[in-house]
Amino acid sequence: MSHCDVDTEIKMASPSRMKDATVLRKVHTSWSSGLLLAALTLCVLTSGCNATDTDIALDAKATLNHRIQSLDLLVFVFLLALTVLTIWLFKHHRVSWLHETGLAVIYGLIVGAIIRYAGTSATLVHMQVEPQGVPTYTDKLPPDTLWFKYPVNQTNGTKLPEGIKTYAYVFRGQVHDVDENEIDLKATFDPEVFFNILLPPIIFYAGYSLKKKYFFRNLGAILTFAIVGTTLSAFLIGGFMYGCVKLMPKYLSSSFTFLDTLYFGALISPTDPLTILAIFNDLRVDVNLYALVLGESVLNDAVAIVLSGAIQNYGEHYSNTGEFETTAFLRSLSDFFSIFLLSLMIGAAMGCLTALISKFTRVRDFPLLESALFVLMSYSTFLLAEATELTGVVAVLFCGICQAHYTYNNLSEDSRQRTKQIFELLNFLAENFIFSYIGVSMFTFPKHHFDAGFIITAFICAAIGRAVNVYPLSWLLNIKRKPKISSNFQHMLFFAGLRGAMSFALAIRNTVSDARQTMLTATSLIVIFTVVIQGGAANFLLNWLKIPVGVDDETEQLNNYQVHSVYNSMDNSHPQTDVENGGGGRGKLRLSGGTESNLDTPADGPNGSLGGPSGGRRRNSHEKAILARIWANFDTKYMKPLLTHSRPTLLETLPVCCNPIARLLTTTQQLTQDGSEFRRVDSDSDICIDNDTGNGLGQDVGPGTGPGAGRRNSLSRMEILEHVQSPVSTRIRLLGFYGKKL
Amino acid sequence: MSHCDVDTEIKMASPSRMKDATVLRKVHTSWSSGLLLAALTLCVLTSGCNATDTDIALDAKATLNHRIQSLDLLVFVFLLALTVLTIWLFKHHRVSWLHETGLAVIYGLIVGAIIRYAGTSATLVHMQVEPQGVPTYTDKLPPDTLWFKYPVNQTNGTKLPEGIKTYAYVFRGQVHDVDENEIDLKATFDPEVFFNILLPPIIFYAGYSLKKKYFFRNLGAILTFAIVGTTLSAFLIGGFMYGCVKLMPKYLSSSFTFLDTLYFGALISPTDPLTILAIFNDLRVDVNLYALVLGESVLNDAVAIVLSGAIQNYGEHYSNTGEFETTAFLRSLSDFFSIFLLSLMIGAAMGCLTALISKFTRVRDFPLLESALFVLMSYSTFLLAEATELTGVVAVLFCGICQAHYTYNNLSEDSRQRTKQIFELLNFLAENFIFSYIGVSMFTFPKHHFDAGFIITAFICAAIGRAVNVYPLSWLLNIKRKPKISSNFQHMLFFAGLRGAMSFALAIRNTVSDARQTMLTATSLIVIFTVVIQGGAANFLLNWLKIPVGVDDETEQLNNYQVHSVYNSMDNSHPQTDVENGGGGRGKLRLSGGTESNLDTPADGPNGSLGGPSGGRRRNSHEKAILARIWANFDTKYMKPLLTHSRPTLLETLPVCCNPIARLLTTTQQLTQDGSEFRRVDSDSDICIDNDTGNGLGQDVGPGTGPGAGRRNSLSRMEILEHVQSPVSTRIRLLGFYGKKL
Repeated sequence: MSHCDVDTEIKMASPSRMKDATVLRKVHTSWSSGLLLAALTLCVLTSGCNATDTDIALDAKATLNHRIQSLDLLVFVFLLALTVLTIWLFKHHRVSWLHETGLAVIYGLIVGAIIRYAGTSATLVHMQVEPQGVPTYTDKLPPDTLWFKYPVNQTNGTKLPEGIKTYAYVFRGQVHDVDENEIDLKATFDPEVFFNILLPPIIFYAGYSLKKKYFFRNLGAILTFAIVGTTLSAFLIGGFMYGCVKLMPKYLSSSFTFLDTLYFGALISPTDPLTILAIFNDLRVDVNLYALVLGESVLNDAVAIVLSGAIQNYGEHYSNTGEFETTAFLRSLSDFFSIFLLSLMIGAAMGCLTALISKFTRVRDFPLLESALFVLMSYSTFLLAEATELTGVVAVLFCGICQAHYTYNNLSEDSRQRTKQIFELLNFLAENFIFSYIGVSMFTFPKHHFDAGFIITAFICAAIGRAVNVYPLSWLLNIKRKPKISSNFQHMLFFAGLRGAMSFALAIRNTVSDARQTMLTATSLIVIFTVVIQGGAANFLLNWLKIPVGVDDETEQLNNYQVHSVYNSMDNSHPQTDVENGGGGRGKLRLSGGTESNLDTPADGPNGSLGGPSGGRRRNSHEKAILARIWANFDTKYMKPLLTHSRPTLLETLPVCCNPIARLLTTTQQLTQDGSEFRRVDSDSDICIDNDTGNGLGQDVGPGTGPGAGRRNSLSRMEILEHVQSPVSTRIRLLGFYGKKL
Repeated sequence: MSHCDVDTEIKMASPSRMKDATVLRKVHTSWSSGLLLAALTLCVLTSGCNATDTDIALDAKATLNHRIQSLDLLVFVFLLALTVLTIWLFKHHRVSWLHETGLAVIYGLIVGAIIRYAGTSATLVHMQVEPQGVPTYTDKLPPDTLWFKYPVNQTNGTKLPEGIKTYAYVFRGQVHDVDENEIDLKATFDPEVFFNILLPPIIFYAGYSLKKKYFFRNLGAILTFAIVGTTLSAFLIGGFMYGCVKLMPKYLSSSFTFLDTLYFGALISPTDPLTILAIFNDLRVDVNLYALVLGESVLNDAVAIVLSGAIQNYGEHYSNTGEFETTAFLRSLSDFFSIFLLSLMIGAAMGCLTALISKFTRVRDFPLLESALFVLMSYSTFLLAEATELTGVVAVLFCGICQAHYTYNNLSEDSRQRTKQIFELLNFLAENFIFSYIGVSMFTFPKHHFDAGFIITAFICAAIGRAVNVYPLSWLLNIKRKPKISSNFQHMLFFAGLRGAMSFALAIRNTVSDARQTMLTATSLIVIFTVVIQGGAANFLLNWLKIPVGVDDETEQLNNYQVHSVYNSMDNSHPQTDVENGGGGRGKLRLSGGTESNLDTPADGPNGSLGGPSGGRRRNSHEKAILARIWANFDTKYMKPLLTHSRPTLLETLPVCCNPIARLLTTTQQLTQDGSEFRRVDSDSDICIDNDTGNGLGQDVGPGTGPGAGRRNSLSRMEILEHVQSPVSTRIRLLGFYGKKL
């Protein structure tokens, strides 16, 4: 019934303000319910029946509710279909000044306005009740259900002897403002749908489709931006907003506490990857900029949700006074880190478990079963984290990264495609639904509170927060970082700070107080503005800042300063690595192709020049990011051999005394390199593996091997392009190409 | 929140019977809530706070509820993952005596038993209330919400001035038996989840993956079995059960009306395709038997849901006395037909609309958008039908058939795979969820009512109903039908009558009265028995009845009696048809392959013999099924040219005066046969199109063309096999094969 929950909300617009606390209240409902109300009346009037009038009326009302819910949801689905068609039209005509999420928002606004101003009104009935007989308030909690005796009108049927029926009422929540014209709770949208249904597939897909090579290459910068930057930005915005709010009129300043503005800071800090990355993808922008923006926005969503949870906990549980208390602050801080790390670990553990299952069973012989298992394990990660009071969204993100890094390599070709395509589609639908909903809710959500002063301040603060996130941290990073983040890149990072789904979801989660409602309105407007205006302007800005687009291979901007892949610079003590995957998927492609150097022709020039950086990488390998190097080493030596069919096997990497265990954990497939058939070209993880292979190759032929590296790089670029296009058709075309060659 | 609704139910086992109507009631809850209750208490006790105790307690309770829901759902997801792994193990070791659905049910039973007997108890609080002040029962309907003032304990915090909070309670439903120990309504599973979330993808997939060639070939028999058979069986079971129930002890016989038993007849009549077809698929059973079982079970689900709706309407709205009334009966009858036909039309119309959109836009250039549009349009069919008070499940079935017949041909290769794979996975997950739930609910659903007499009678009646469905109708059909349904086939049809998801969903939809609860228990047991025992025995039975398995091509059993495809026997006045798709996908494959006759070798013998039936088909073309022939003619002449890129175009089939319109409705692609690239081998509709092509070919070379038909047939058999296997890898293998040949 989730969908129904989602959209029952749209059937009401913000009510006119009535100050008298009547029992009967009128609320605006959408045209759909208006249309159907006539049907209800008709239905009640015409039915000759053997049941009582009340039964009939209740039955008709239930049917009516179901129809209204279906109709409302239908409006959303049509809205999405319309968005899809318009997106196609825009792409077809190469319109670049408006992107899909912006389009979804704008359509949402239009439909929301129509619903609001075409809305008719229906009556919802409230009744004040008190306990029957002597009140027995023995419990701390209000009762779970109320049983209410109601005398039934019996005009014609006289079969039922009793004239009274008992109806059950279920606890919903507190009525915060009895005198206000509060929207009937029954029809209030449950924002938890965002966190339980819509966000998980989006976040999982972000993790699953992360281009790990570039991600790990820029790991330091990404972590700095995401964790330090987001926290910094949250506190800065929180403090600044608090100061500004206190200068505002009394009614507003009195409703805001510092925790409220801090919460606002936390929810407005995370940036949204969707729009900007769609543009980057279309334009094939520099891969390192892409990785920075993607990595940061994925991680800062995770940081923001945990941070806002910690702030809320601080206010609700730890602090007695509402003022600053050291112990409460420390408890919140430990909450923040423990929840983040534990969620991360649960996600990673479930990802690894899936990898183990897919490695040690031959469930890949039945791709449907395999895909089902993959989906179920990924979903159970979310549930497991939620059931242990951790953050499901964070767990799902790291589960996605692990699934892509390990499990993906064990999957059958069919499952790889299927899982990618399914999550791609889910992601697309969920993200467009959210953005449509942001548009619609601007007009229909009843708990908006417009305050121009606050909104303007919020816009300014959001921009300042983003600037603080980008510029000082870039400066700091540039001190040690050899491929400096140029100032044009910094400006682009600043402008890429669109706000999106996570900000909105966090804002709409709690709209109890005036402060929270004001925050929701400001957040909605910031999201709409940044997505439509900034998203639309991104294209022009890329031109203006002269950021290279249409980059066809690894001629990255950052390369001028000699790229070091922290991930590449691993310990090179394993001559086996060149057997590993070079003998796997890549080798096989060469076998069937045999002529792939032909494909290199257009890219040969720039690639050849990579010999330099390759040597530089080697030189600098011990200079930086010791943690990342240790991890990469550990990963290649133990994790991958354990969790995938890659070589070296554990037999080679574990000490001799562990041989029996190592033998147990090594599959025959792994030893016989039978695993080759499970490596294919369109894998992001393969890019990563390929990377290792390249490393090995480099070692074999010696450092600075121009041609070897060139071939590898042009191939991985092809893989990236393939990933953007339809992988199947490309592959078939490739095979056909080889076939003809032969 | 749908999932939560689904499974909150499992946290209670059937309660011990307490006959006193106390305000506090204990119900069994699962171990999960038991475990977490300690946490709640702890949480309440330890929290030093600035809010009131009640706030904290409520907050903790909400968190607790969320965790319980997550945990309960997690149990289900793990159960499904376990089922998937065991299915793999069984398939891996070729265990044939237990199939996947049976496995899901058995695991469900085990987990249900564990939940029930390991259950701890938690307290749910009810309170009787009455209106505050003077009662104002002015309305026919009970109020939508109750507002309940509750004094709040304030032991430490004194910030809030008022000691009373108002809580809102939302209307849930009638309490039918105040004295009975009724399970708290809050935790009652909402069976509408079946009809709104789980059944639609299953039914859509059934329509979308229907092998239309064989379906249309056996259309007459399928329609007879599905519509006449199901209705007959429902009324027969209803009548017989009524007679038997009246002979039973008073307490049971008094609670049953004839409408109840008729409803039982309607819900127990539809057969479930899942298990039996999985077996048939694995064994590659005779295709016509496959088509009969599949077609019947898909359609009788649709018939049953509309029929049971009509019966319910009869009882609730039309009949005043509960006895037979002619007008009420006629109204129900017209309901039945109008709802069925209108749902069918909505489904077909939405399918055609999708086909038109996919034909006249080039949205296929962006497969993700195309797939999203496909999913959205299919889902909106369901919503549209529900919003207009028709039956969404029926609409979705016919939408699926139209999507496969028309839209599928316009889709890009990527979208074809993606949509098939997505719905295949959704279908798999939904179906296994339902069967697991059937198992679990046997122990945990609180409204079971065991009555051995009723259950035994129900088993006998279900068998009789199935027999009446199969044997007399087969006899009737065999009078006119040339490829007679042999008695072995009839026995197999009888045994293939497993009951499944639809029966269970209809039974659990309404469990208000004792009669309905008894029916639910009987239905659950029948489903479990037929799925586990009959499903397991199907394999042996196929052997015993000497039904051909491992059929590799069209050497169907029925062929001995000369097959006529009613669908094939269309007007052959269009020489263009051979250009149509022979020049399309098939031709392309031949072009790249050129040697596919090599692949025919194992099948050449049997195929050659098809020349006979092919001639026979031609001879008999005017003998039967005039309606089907008219439709097929209309379809080829107008529908396909309008909705797909197939030839002949409308320019050729419409009268000359309509040329401007025809030109408008014909794409350039259609005229230039550019559409060829959009036809591929793994399409069921292609089998159908291929069929037309074959027809054309047959006409070209003359009737009874052994080799031509042979080649075509062996190819279509290959297509079917490919469909069963992974389509991509097969195609790649094929292309590789051709590559090598060249």
